[in-house]
Amino acid sequence: MKQMQVLPLSDIKIEDRFWSEYIRLVREVVVPYQWETLNDRVPDAEPSRAIRNFRIAAGEESGEFYGMVFQDSDVAKWLEAAGYLLQSGRDPELERIADDLVDLIVKAQREDGYLNTYYMLKEPGNEWTNLCECHELYTAGHLIEGAVAYFQATGKRAILDVACKFADYIDSVFGPEPGKLQGYDGHQEIELALVKLYETTGEERYLRLSQFFLNERGKEPHFYDKEYEERGQTVHWGSDFMVKNRSYSQAQAPIREQTSAEGHAVRLVYMCTAMADVAAKTGDSGLLQACRRLWNNIVTRRMYITGGIGSMAQEESFTLDYDLPNDTAYAETCASIGLIFFAQRMLRIEPHRRYADVMEKALYNTVLGGMAKDGRHFFYVNPLEVWPDACGKNHVYDHVKPVRQGWFGCACCPPNVARLLASLGQYIYTANENAVYVHLYVGGEANLTIQDHKVKLIQQSELPWSGRVRFTVEPETPVQFELMLRMPEWTDKSGVKLTVNGESCTIHTINGYAIIRRKWKSGDIIELDLPMPVMRMKGHPLLRETVGKVAISRGPLVYCLEEADNGKHLHQMYLQSSCELSVAFEPDLLGGVCVIKTEAERLSPRNWEDVLYKEDARNEYEPAAATFIPYFAWANRGEGEMTVWVREHI
Amino acid sequence: MKQMQVLPLSDIKIEDRFWSEYIRLVREVVVPYQWETLNDRVPDAEPSRAIRNFRIAAGEESGEFYGMVFQDSDVAKWLEAAGYLLQSGRDPELERIADDLVDLIVKAQREDGYLNTYYMLKEPGNEWTNLCECHELYTAGHLIEGAVAYFQATGKRAILDVACKFADYIDSVFGPEPGKLQGYDGHQEIELALVKLYETTGEERYLRLSQFFLNERGKEPHFYDKEYEERGQTVHWGSDFMVKNRSYSQAQAPIREQTSAEGHAVRLVYMCTAMADVAAKTGDSGLLQACRRLWNNIVTRRMYITGGIGSMAQEESFTLDYDLPNDTAYAETCASIGLIFFAQRMLRIEPHRRYADVMEKALYNTVLGGMAKDGRHFFYVNPLEVWPDACGKNHVYDHVKPVRQGWFGCACCPPNVARLLASLGQYIYTANENAVYVHLYVGGEANLTIQDHKVKLIQQSELPWSGRVRFTVEPETPVQFELMLRMPEWTDKSGVKLTVNGESCTIHTINGYAIIRRKWKSGDIIELDLPMPVMRMKGHPLLRETVGKVAISRGPLVYCLEEADNGKHLHQMYLQSSCELSVAFEPDLLGGVCVIKTEAERLSPRNWEDVLYKEDARNEYEPAAATFIPYFAWANRGEGEMTVWVREHI
Repeated sequence: MKQMQVLPLSDIKIEDRFWSEYIRLVREVVVPYQWETLNDRVPDAEPSRAIRNFRIAAGEESGEFYGMVFQDSDVAKWLEAAGYLLQSGRDPELERIADDLVDLIVKAQREDGYLNTYYMLKEPGNEWTNLCECHELYTAGHLIEGAVAYFQATGKRAILDVACKFADYIDSVFGPEPGKLQGYDGHQEIELALVKLYETTGEERYLRLSQFFLNERGKEPHFYDKEYEERGQTVHWGSDFMVKNRSYSQAQAPIREQTSAEGHAVRLVYMCTAMADVAAKTGDSGLLQACRRLWNNIVTRRMYITGGIGSMAQEESFTLDYDLPNDTAYAETCASIGLIFFAQRMLRIEPHRRYADVMEKALYNTVLGGMAKDGRHFFYVNPLEVWPDACGKNHVYDHVKPVRQGWFGCACCPPNVARLLASLGQYIYTANENAVYVHLYVGGEANLTIQDHKVKLIQQSELPWSGRVRFTVEPETPVQFELMLRMPEWTDKSGVKLTVNGESCTIHTINGYAIIRRKWKSGDIIELDLPMPVMRMKGHPLLRETVGKVAISRGPLVYCLEEADNGKHLHQMYLQSSCELSVAFEPDLLGGVCVIKTEAERLSPRNWEDVLYKEDARNEYEPAAATFIPYFAWANRGEGEMTVWVREHI
Repeated sequence: MKQMQVLPLSDIKIEDRFWSEYIRLVREVVVPYQWETLNDRVPDAEPSRAIRNFRIAAGEESGEFYGMVFQDSDVAKWLEAAGYLLQSGRDPELERIADDLVDLIVKAQREDGYLNTYYMLKEPGNEWTNLCECHELYTAGHLIEGAVAYFQATGKRAILDVACKFADYIDSVFGPEPGKLQGYDGHQEIELALVKLYETTGEERYLRLSQFFLNERGKEPHFYDKEYEERGQTVHWGSDFMVKNRSYSQAQAPIREQTSAEGHAVRLVYMCTAMADVAAKTGDSGLLQACRRLWNNIVTRRMYITGGIGSMAQEESFTLDYDLPNDTAYAETCASIGLIFFAQRMLRIEPHRRYADVMEKALYNTVLGGMAKDGRHFFYVNPLEVWPDACGKNHVYDHVKPVRQGWFGCACCPPNVARLLASLGQYIYTANENAVYVHLYVGGEANLTIQDHKVKLIQQSELPWSGRVRFTVEPETPVQFELMLRMPEWTDKSGVKLTVNGESCTIHTINGYAIIRRKWKSGDIIELDLPMPVMRMKGHPLLRETVGKVAISRGPLVYCLEEADNGKHLHQMYLQSSCELSVAFEPDLLGGVCVIKTEAERLSPRNWEDVLYKEDARNEYEPAAATFIPYFAWANRGEGEMTVWVREHI
């Protein structure tokens, strides 16, 4: 099957009133800061020693390995983010640092291509004996992703050679042939990385290896049992949970037979991303069908309205259909990032609004909410309802933090946010010979090549505060193609206005995209006005946590009530089903956000002194003003209650 | 201060249409069965070895200690229940078994009086080195309670001598004097047991020792730290949690300074029981004030409508005010039993309906719900909402069992239910020279002595199905006293009818008890008709889990919806605030229960195919019949959903 192209980041320049600030943060704060932590130069931060591990492996220092089995991946993700930043624009100082890092990595790589400082320093000889638990191929995958990003940014082959040499070595160890290991990693990642390496090098062995890993997964007799027995039933994490609980790592059945999203959420979406990649490259329609099934299960049964997935803290996992508790939610930031990867891969295969709507939802709400305005504090866990008084007192909330934490204390989400935002340009458009799809309305310049003609597409967007978008098309010579503009689920279709050069167009949509087919000439201007009404969202009647409640959204943003604006005891707030919801942009609030205000009611505590339960036919309510802020901006004003879902009088 | 008397069980005979069956179960099933398990004669049951531990300690068998540090307490609780049964009626076979057990215990006791098979067999020499964690005095307390109950039943001193000898030894080890240990047990129990021993023997040292343990608790420098250092910082349970987290065992501050119910719920209520006992015996009004404070905190902030307490599974603990989740509730059966102890002690000091109302609520709902109709299956955990599909899938519900478990697999709740039900007679009345208080409407005969006159009081009660109660008074000679009849919170005061010998009386109440003062003569008949309307209960507006919901209760019983009657997805049910709730006794259902029926509505899933969230101004409802059953009877028809709190249209 034919895949749409993703534009290289070097051909995309983001200039957007909303997003540029985030990308600046990543460039100026997140990536430099992370480099300092990887080198243990941040006072008060937990030790990382990730760079030091490489130095020891390279023989430049002596000492012992420190950290998790996947400590190397922090370095790789940093390199990946640096690569994306360098693709987007020159930065000689960053490139110098990264080049030094590459030199170190080259030096640390073993002669045969193997590279994993944990095994090299701590368990030499035990390589490939505990795939189930020890993230060995996961770490390799991140190294490959980092290498590809840095090579694409600089054209320097050194790190790509490291990746290829390692991949070749892995290919010599794993495969269907007798004498090779028929196994796969407990944490998916290598699969999607190998596809990137294949795309970059054209080496088909990498694609086949990715396909092999995917197809091996969940087969019986089970690989986890086999390696467990062979290594004498030792475990790395203190219990045999990962070995025995196979759905935790989506190894409970062959991937084509999996119909629901089970287990560790990040692993599932990384796997799906690779499945879609391999389906596209190999034309495997069965595999594509499996992707669609899992996608549908997630988005119609197991996803928060914020695009968060994985509702359970223990095991960071999916649970069961329609089980989406708001207060004990896990909804890891990384899982929503993985969902965005998956959506993007599906958009490359079969552009449909349904993928882009979810991608946008996860991006603007959970991922953006995952990082504070200062770029130095992050959420792993993204609940939809928080009662700070109960955190630390009722242990079902132990994973819930009412304010974002210093990012350096944790290894996975902050660099994942960094690499996603640094590569945001890859999620805005897809294109082929005949069409350019606009999935996200993010301002900036895209330099496309369509039928061998250079076309510059300039986007201006007022999202997320208004739905007004403007494109200027500048082909070097007039060229015919279809411009496909996403009609988001959040707009009022009947009110959408589309003009080309000031002339109103009738809107025809295909799979949720308005199609404009014409021979474009330089200076053509498209204006799109997507009405952005305030929406009163309801949850499916099988969702226990949303019955009788309403969530307010506008455009891509989900809104919430915060204690800072509405006082304590948010569970007492009620909206009338007929209440008027007014929108106002407040430039001085939270860096400038639209708030939504309404007259609401509050359950009154009157006549409830010193009694916990009583017969009370009529509840009493008091008038109360309610102010909603965008969910992504919550917890930037200290600790307080927050809720997305609000009770409704009906 | 003067305490009301509790009637000895030998003077009470329960003959009640509702309760007799439960007491028969305890006598014929629970106690015999538990004896078999203590002796490891039940196939498929988890090993207990509790009797075997005593045999080894007595030198009758060789082998090693098996079980928990508090394994002995299972034997003691059994003996206590047996004692209560023997107080209520002769049973030569049971007495023979118990006598043999007593012989064994006598033989196992150490010369100096010490008795604890764990320390004697497993850690000799380490006695009294880890009070915080190892339940050494807790186990002693249960032995004393068992001894007192058995002595009271039989008048045989052997086991009472064991208890006194042990208590004397403990008194030689602990106390304010130099050279003695200034410490106390992590799990309260010895305190209330010593008061029983004092009541039985008149030995004031036991009362002073109880007082000492209570007053030592929570003092600084902290005893837990001291013994922890002295034993070289070893821990019994794998972490130093119990040593460091002092509120877990109510040792965060001296008990008089504690204003809220914190930590492990059973420990708290056992402690409060002893505090009330000691306050009464010593006239310590400060201690009584502390009891009232903790009582008020529990019942106005931290108690489920079912009388369940301790809302958190982790640490089996209280959490914070108004944190009473229905689905992740712990609400341990034992904790409600302890709350009943506490209530009974307060009733002895200051009879007030508020204590008896809670005692009745905990008894009829959580405690009764803790045992299945067959007497062989029990709940530890008593949630107010259960979604069986999610149990085992979302780990926040790991402690929740949708059906009762075989009682022999667990050590604490089943024998606690047994000893409470076997001694139910002690909770019905209190009396002094001038008055007889009726706290519970449970049918049977009570033989009182009032002003040296024998008075037989015969109660007939239709509770919990109707509020009609009838008393026949049979004094051996006419005697004047006040009969105080509780006007429960659940009745409609305006409709209460009271007659004496057929003549209507005006009702005067004192502290919630209708007072009838007269010279009673044989054959006097009191008829009390307590209207028992169906009540629509609401929760305090600070309770997050009950907002917008209603719980149905009638008389002492809280009702619930079960899947067996109402289908799945109980969260979709809505009651109209004006709906008519009709009561019907169904003799063939669940052993005969009143059900409550109404026309309700159900949120409709129409038009929700394959979409999880959507803008939807109007929810759709479908008519649905709702049938409520008593909460105590839930989960007797296989696995299914259950909920106490139901949404309400307002």
